[in-house]
Amino acid sequence: MKKVKVIEKLKEDPLMPMRHSAEHVMQLSVEALYKGAKKVMGPPIEDGFYGDFDYDGKISTEDLPKIEAYMKDIIKADLKLEMKAVTKDEALKIFKDNPYKVELVNEIATKGEKITVCETGKKGDKYYDIDLCGGPHVASTGKIKAIKLLNVAGAYWRGDEKNKMLQRIYATAFASEEELNAYLERLEEAKKRDHRKLGKDLDLYVISDEVGPGLVLWTPNGTIIRDELENWAKETEEAWGYKRVATPHIAKHTLYETSGHLPYYKDDMYAPMMIDEEEYYLKGMNCPHHHIIFNSSPKSYRDLPLRYAEYGTVYRYEQSGTLFGLMRVRSIAQNDAHIYCTYDQAEDEFVKSLELHDYYYKTLGLTKDDYFAVLGLPSEEKKAKYHGNKEMWDLAEKMTRNAMKRFGIRFVEDYGGAAFYGPKIDINIKSSIGKEYSISTSQLDLYMPTRFNLEYTDSNGEKQLAAVIHRAPLGSHERFVGFLIEHFGGAFPVWLSPAQAVVIPIGEKHQEFAQRIAAKLKENKIRVEVDDKAGSMQSKIRDAQMKKVPYMLIVGDREIESDSASVRLRSGEDLKAVKVDEIVAKISNIRLTKSLLLW
Amino acid sequence: MKKVKVIEKLKEDPLMPMRHSAEHVMQLSVEALYKGAKKVMGPPIEDGFYGDFDYDGKISTEDLPKIEAYMKDIIKADLKLEMKAVTKDEALKIFKDNPYKVELVNEIATKGEKITVCETGKKGDKYYDIDLCGGPHVASTGKIKAIKLLNVAGAYWRGDEKNKMLQRIYATAFASEEELNAYLERLEEAKKRDHRKLGKDLDLYVISDEVGPGLVLWTPNGTIIRDELENWAKETEEAWGYKRVATPHIAKHTLYETSGHLPYYKDDMYAPMMIDEEEYYLKGMNCPHHHIIFNSSPKSYRDLPLRYAEYGTVYRYEQSGTLFGLMRVRSIAQNDAHIYCTYDQAEDEFVKSLELHDYYYKTLGLTKDDYFAVLGLPSEEKKAKYHGNKEMWDLAEKMTRNAMKRFGIRFVEDYGGAAFYGPKIDINIKSSIGKEYSISTSQLDLYMPTRFNLEYTDSNGEKQLAAVIHRAPLGSHERFVGFLIEHFGGAFPVWLSPAQAVVIPIGEKHQEFAQRIAAKLKENKIRVEVDDKAGSMQSKIRDAQMKKVPYMLIVGDREIESDSASVRLRSGEDLKAVKVDEIVAKISNIRLTKSLLLW
Repeated sequence: MKKVKVIEKLKEDPLMPMRHSAEHVMQLSVEALYKGAKKVMGPPIEDGFYGDFDYDGKISTEDLPKIEAYMKDIIKADLKLEMKAVTKDEALKIFKDNPYKVELVNEIATKGEKITVCETGKKGDKYYDIDLCGGPHVASTGKIKAIKLLNVAGAYWRGDEKNKMLQRIYATAFASEEELNAYLERLEEAKKRDHRKLGKDLDLYVISDEVGPGLVLWTPNGTIIRDELENWAKETEEAWGYKRVATPHIAKHTLYETSGHLPYYKDDMYAPMMIDEEEYYLKGMNCPHHHIIFNSSPKSYRDLPLRYAEYGTVYRYEQSGTLFGLMRVRSIAQNDAHIYCTYDQAEDEFVKSLELHDYYYKTLGLTKDDYFAVLGLPSEEKKAKYHGNKEMWDLAEKMTRNAMKRFGIRFVEDYGGAAFYGPKIDINIKSSIGKEYSISTSQLDLYMPTRFNLEYTDSNGEKQLAAVIHRAPLGSHERFVGFLIEHFGGAFPVWLSPAQAVVIPIGEKHQEFAQRIAAKLKENKIRVEVDDKAGSMQSKIRDAQMKKVPYMLIVGDREIESDSASVRLRSGEDLKAVKVDEIVAKISNIRLTKSLLLW
Repeated sequence: MKKVKVIEKLKEDPLMPMRHSAEHVMQLSVEALYKGAKKVMGPPIEDGFYGDFDYDGKISTEDLPKIEAYMKDIIKADLKLEMKAVTKDEALKIFKDNPYKVELVNEIATKGEKITVCETGKKGDKYYDIDLCGGPHVASTGKIKAIKLLNVAGAYWRGDEKNKMLQRIYATAFASEEELNAYLERLEEAKKRDHRKLGKDLDLYVISDEVGPGLVLWTPNGTIIRDELENWAKETEEAWGYKRVATPHIAKHTLYETSGHLPYYKDDMYAPMMIDEEEYYLKGMNCPHHHIIFNSSPKSYRDLPLRYAEYGTVYRYEQSGTLFGLMRVRSIAQNDAHIYCTYDQAEDEFVKSLELHDYYYKTLGLTKDDYFAVLGLPSEEKKAKYHGNKEMWDLAEKMTRNAMKRFGIRFVEDYGGAAFYGPKIDINIKSSIGKEYSISTSQLDLYMPTRFNLEYTDSNGEKQLAAVIHRAPLGSHERFVGFLIEHFGGAFPVWLSPAQAVVIPIGEKHQEFAQRIAAKLKENKIRVEVDDKAGSMQSKIRDAQMKKVPYMLIVGDREIESDSASVRLRSGEDLKAVKVDEIVAKISNIRLTKSLLLW
């Protein structure tokens, strides 16, 4: 989610005033405990708040309990928090020893805005703080309930690395100890599920300095997940009436001038390379390539809707500082498609596309309660970033809203969040532990057809402009696999698991039978390995469990006698001996139906 | 095949002296018939010869019969062709009116080589020609048998567009009229099969000026072929013990410096782009990316052989003048893989890789008689283009030769054709009409492991360098589909056909039954359409035949009664009424077994 959206959300967050107040208490405490420490700034954020400090010594994680204890004393003291307006001169006098606040005061004054400060406690009392602040707060510190300081990190003043490095303390506050503890548990769980950690533990992908930041190399395990998703999309989209196309990863500048991505989208694209004295760009999006295919032969109304799908890899230039695991990358393999249709078909097609989203998500156990849309619309301030045909904007917005209404999706609005060519909806999904991921983007686009002359002949033999729907329900391999890792905590549904079963022979003499079982599973396209390394059965089970392999099939004398294996599930459940044929049938069925169950 | 190889082949071509002589006869004829025309040069080439002329008028295809008739008179006259050595001064005197020959004489003299001329007929006789020439020739023009002038094209002197445009006449000569006619028929057939023509007729791909030359966009029909090939390779390679990986299309310059592609291969790579003040390149090959994945976790001898497969798209800079349809392109989707193994395993793995080649080719109806290898070895002259470890070159060559011998493949040698990192074998396939295509490249590479430190731990716990085999049996989608189009003349085997069947209802009242049959075929994953356009049955059959659809299923009253369809094959064969269930079973079986048969 973009920053603007977070701020909108915070305004509505009932915990925000308490967290904002807790931040003042933290500033007071740090300045009291660390001589020379200067508060810099500290806003509430999603799930908590932070504070930045200019301090020549080092504040470390070990210091946090001490600060926390001091804060709790202040909370117990139930000091009043009071806002008041001051003049620029008064403010400059109050903050004369704090150059950061002086800078901010001057800035506010230049803009002609009102200057307000917040006092915590009374001047001269044991605890006192005064800070430049716009509020809101709780009435007194006693209203701050459960607090927790989380960690310390470095941060530059105004995010600019040319400035001095500050020390940032992340913290949170909740309305009760129970809620705080639940949050801390969630945090702990999220840490365990971090896709970067699990990506490494399960050997799913590599990002290498030699290749470049933000460029993901998929190892064999990761490629299995990628391929399963891709095959699923191919099958599904074929059944839903899509045709597949394949296009190159570069194009001449002229293509992006026609589309308007140059100049509208230039900052997000890679720098050009010179070929035959012309600028070529890595594609940042697949649409212009698809439009060229659409235009490569004349189209009639009988051909529409025409749906071109491609798992196309696009390249976007993201600042290296913003790159983050699989979540924010530079090479993006998109589950992309473009639907060319008549204006009359556009709304229906948009609804169908949302239904396709739902089909995919449902398969992964996610219902309409787990996702919502952000409707990106143009804003007056960003006017220069959008095409200028007002009528077209209105019509596209109307169709988009109608489609969302008909499909029945919850949504929020984001003015300023549109694509330059039309309104946009982002679909955000909540994972099993409540973390939100922006997964997919759709647009109903009436504008590109005018730039590319995307026409068809109607039933009267007249040329008409088509409408285009851009959609990508599974987002990109990078972010979607990242989401799946965290959503499932690495314990993927059977069909997505890199290794689906491991056969563990108890002793040397059970090897042959183990291999026979493995062969049988392989025949049924089940990904299976025999663990024939040296080592105890217990250590092999532990190993398989670490790798989150759904099925451990243990074989010894008794199992050989009854043509069975003792089945242990990844969940820890022990099913005892099950006939080999039944195992094959069960796993095959679970695999083929993409079931989320283990048995 | 590279030029050097063609020249080697021509030396061994028994038709070459006759064609070379016919070229003198053509020169004589053109200079006699067109006042002011100056012969420039004209070598024998594969399958014929050509002659370039400097002439201010226009020689057109309509003129060719006249020139041919004149040539036949000269042939009948049975003039002697005689070579003799001359001094530079003598040569300059002979050719004083021909600036091209003067330039060539001076060039030969500067190199200190012998100057020879060839006289056709006797000076002063009706027919006489003298030309700068190194031979060989037949003894007299009467030995020239069947000739044919083919077409006229423009060409620059020395291929440099800054020079004057010359007129080039392409022609051929054979030992008998029968052989000539057979060749002309093959030529006619090749024209019909031209992948650029069929690519357009069957709507398989687009190359667009807006995207850039040499960059192929695959339309839905072409993508079906591409996807079928890709799925086949994935299944096959999985069964043969490969694991799939996926890597980005760009990398930092440092990666290619490590590999040595910079500088060894720089001319074939795209120009760099600047990202975060570093040069990034489009990948020209997948190997360095795979090496990074290999090195991303420690490897033991138990992990080897480890085979990483990727249908990776690479980008190579080809001069725009050399680009040609699907055959020579800039975006290349390679059926790539790299096999990491011990030195002891390398020969076996190379044999296995050749066996995999054979498995693929056999499925397409190609046997060991239809393909051969070109073994590229280093040459003394190109020394600077190869790594310098002689021992390594010798070992890799020995292993490669042994593997080829064990597998039993015919091969020729090409000194100078090695990769910079090791000996190379190109596999050339002859299509059904005898045209040769260089399809696949393999290398046994001992060198890259030293640059990337590709190591494994052996059974004694010691670090050892791995060997790497590069292989791509299906070459690239671009060239391989181009080959398949020409090999099958667009009439692809059923499993590769974009539309596998078309149902043709005779009248309006047969529509519903037609749709029911189509639904049944679709359930069985057969790509089928119902031709419900207006138009006669005959025109629909013609249309399907043009599109080379394997099966036309015609349904009328009688077919509905008997739950059948009248089956017409693409070959023209009419199978009369066949029960629908039998049709489904038959086509399914042919599709699943990748049979080359139609019924």
